[in-house]
Amino acid sequence: MTQNHTAGESRLERGTRALSEIDGKAGEAVISALADIAPDFARYVIEFPFGDIYSRPGLDLRAREIATVAALTAMGNAAPQLKVHIEAGLNVGLSRGEITEIIMQMAVYAGFPAALNGLFAAKEVFARLDMETEASGRERLA
Amino acid sequence: MTQNHTAGESRLERGTRALSEIDGKAGEAVISALADIAPDFARYVIEFPFGDIYSRPGLDLRAREIATVAALTAMGNAAPQLKVHIEAGLNVGLSRGEITEIIMQMAVYAGFPAALNGLFAAKEVFARLDMETEASGRERLA
Amino acid sequence: MTQNHTAGESRLERGTRALSEIDGKAGEAVISALADIAPDFARYVIEFPFGDIYSRPGLDLRAREIATVAALTAMGNAAPQLKVHIEAGLNVGLSRGEITEIIMQMAVYAGFPAALNGLFAAKEVFARLDMETEASGRERLA
Amino acid sequence: MTQNHTAGESRLERGTRALSEIDGKAGEAVISALADIAPDFARYVIEFPFGDIYSRPGLDLRAREIATVAALTAMGNAAPQLKVHIEAGLNVGLSRGEITEIIMQMAVYAGFPAALNGLFAAKEVFARLDMETEASGRERLA
Amino acid sequence: MTQNHTAGESRLERGTRALSEIDGKAGEAVISALADIAPDFARYVIEFPFGDIYSRPGLDLRAREIATVAALTAMGNAAPQLKVHIEAGLNVGLSRGEITEIIMQMAVYAGFPAALNGLFAAKEVFARLDMETEASGRERLA
Amino acid sequence: MTQNHTAGESRLERGTRALSEIDGKAGEAVISALADIAPDFARYVIEFPFGDIYSRPGLDLRAREIATVAALTAMGNAAPQLKVHIEAGLNVGLSRGEITEIIMQMAVYAGFPAALNGLFAAKEVFARLDMETEASGRERLA
Repeated sequence: MTQNHTAGESRLERGTRALSEIDGKAGEAVISALADIAPDFARYVIEFPFGDIYSRPGLDLRAREIATVAALTAMGNAAPQLKVHIEAGLNVGLSRGEITEIIMQMAVYAGFPAALNGLFAAKEVFARLDMETEASGRERLA
Repeated sequence: MTQNHTAGESRLERGTRALSEIDGKAGEAVISALADIAPDFARYVIEFPFGDIYSRPGLDLRAREIATVAALTAMGNAAPQLKVHIEAGLNVGLSRGEITEIIMQMAVYAGFPAALNGLFAAKEVFARLDMETEASGRERLA
Repeated sequence: MTQNHTAGESRLERGTRALSEIDGKAGEAVISALADIAPDFARYVIEFPFGDIYSRPGLDLRAREIATVAALTAMGNAAPQLKVHIEAGLNVGLSRGEITEIIMQMAVYAGFPAALNGLFAAKEVFARLDMETEASGRERLA
Repeated sequence: MTQNHTAGESRLERGTRALSEIDGKAGEAVISALADIAPDFARYVIEFPFGDIYSRPGLDLRAREIATVAALTAMGNAAPQLKVHIEAGLNVGLSRGEITEIIMQMAVYAGFPAALNGLFAAKEVFARLDMETEASGRERLA
Repeated sequence: MTQNHTAGESRLERGTRALSEIDGKAGEAVISALADIAPDFARYVIEFPFGDIYSRPGLDLRAREIATVAALTAMGNAAPQLKVHIEAGLNVGLSRGEITEIIMQMAVYAGFPAALNGLFAAKEVFARLDMETEASGRERLA
Repeated sequence: MTQNHTAGESRLERGTRALSEIDGKAGEAVISALADIAPDFARYVIEFPFGDIYSRPGLDLRAREIATVAALTAMGNAAPQLKVHIEAGLNVGLSRGEITEIIMQMAVYAGFPAALNGLFAAKEVFARLDMETEASGRERLA
């Protein structure tokens, strides 16, 4: 995991690097979707959450994604972002089982509906990733 | 960390053990406070969150407390429970700096007021713990 | 229970009657507290919630207070209003045990912290009512 | 209404019975959907909400569903669960008119958007039930 | 902007006028959709929010829509109503750029997911309006 | 109102200027309170909300404070920040009456309890400001 501050790197550069490492293509898609309506906000998304917060050295990315998946499940009103971060969790080393545990635990703090909706979001993300893996496997065989 | 299921142990026994390990005296105080108004609920608090969820083997207690501190900070409407879990985080091995990082990160997902109120809750818990340490130090010296 | 529309009665008159029956003195205190800052809002509180909604014939006041205590417990960000409606629930015929059951059930839908904070609010209301009863008993004996 | 504790019945057995009585097929569908991602959570859903809470004797199922429909409408972030419980409300004896009243009342506590979205959820459930009734009527006539 | 109280006008008349001015066709569609399930609630929507609140003289409609777009973005659980009020904001004189600024600002108070979902709602509304303008342009040319 | 970007000014400088103009002493108090627990977060509070967002030219500070007071009232879980921004609203030109209107309007979107708690927060801020004015008046006379 990077999370180090390369000398002379701007917040935008550092954030772009962190966004790519954590959110992968899903993160880039969000940034593109903002281009016509709020390009400055696209920059802020890269600079503050990724350039400032996720790049801080005091907590590793695995722990940061545990926190984010938990919070988004508990809040229950940000399904698209929860799906992005379920995949981000896998990107930074959480297993599917661990992500499922985090979401289940939210039943205690935010109720069973929040946990159920989180689990169904995870199920959807896992199924999509399986299909993509399968499709790219078929391509390699072809 | 325990989190193992001792053969023949009931949910209540397992939960009591987990509650004591994680929440310490703060957990016991909550259970006592429920005794006269809702004793069955006191039992449920021990059995489901602690006997069922926190005792599951798939995620260690450190990760579980990261998730809980994040969720309670983000939800922003459960200050007493957030304070209990800031202390619980310390009990299971998180540092003060790590807890501060988790709470700061919530500015991204739940806004700056939620993060600010979480940081002030942490400040209060840390100050109380320092005072208790100091007081018990004076007692040992006396 | 009233909830009937007396011919020719205005929304304000009907609401004042319903507010007094349901919330008692606690309701009047809220209305008074609004007098200097937002007197029109005091009127709206009487007219819409009480004159329009609580006075509708399709659901009795007992059922309406079950709904309100449940919602305010689950939302978890309106402690003063929850306390008013715990007392209102008693005023319209719910027992302390029933109110406790409603609040406990919210652990399922909004998490254990919401239910715990609701139970502690109920405990506070019940204790205050006991003290008032005792005090007025002593006065009668004196 | 059952809600009684049959001697020797486990939480899982009692919860399965309560879930079936209250949520009917919709409840079973949720449990099945969890089978591959979080089978333990499926068991917890049956055991805690249904085996522990809904089976408690201190409040009848009609009152419990008033509380649940109110809370889920007010929280406004759990549409699938709200629909399940609108149907559950009908299953345990609430009329369509009473459910509509409960949801309308939430405008007072959680705002008009929450009430509107709740009413549109109810409209959707009622329409589906009408279509199912009609379809099964045609089958009987055929 | 009207917002004046015409002598002798009822709340329903005043609210109908305000609803039409502010929400336009989108408001009428909501009222129609309520006709079969909760006609009284349709009346309340007109009378209280529009007849009472939006018609008050102390704050102009432009300021009122800034407040509503901000609140609905921050709450994050009322997408249909947010879209109606993004259009309403344009109807009462806010520019697309100003609406985008209001929504972006909510990242500070309710987190980046709330702001992102608000921006995507605005993007959808703006695109629909552009298509309607284009379609009506083609009609005029035909 | 400033909101202009002075050439060569850093985000921290621009944010410090905006924070001082908008939040006055209350803002400085928040920054000081963070100094020992999370000094970096103090810097982020100045840089992102104030240096980036409030300093943007597309919306004046009056409109920005309408949005913030509305959102914090509606969310209902950030009382200290709501009070800071009620005073900030006055600092950037909103009248007490306008602030009261914004808060009252939130009854429509977030329910009556949120509006009531917002009005009581405003009442508290207005009373404190009156006392401070009176006290400084007495000092001048002495």
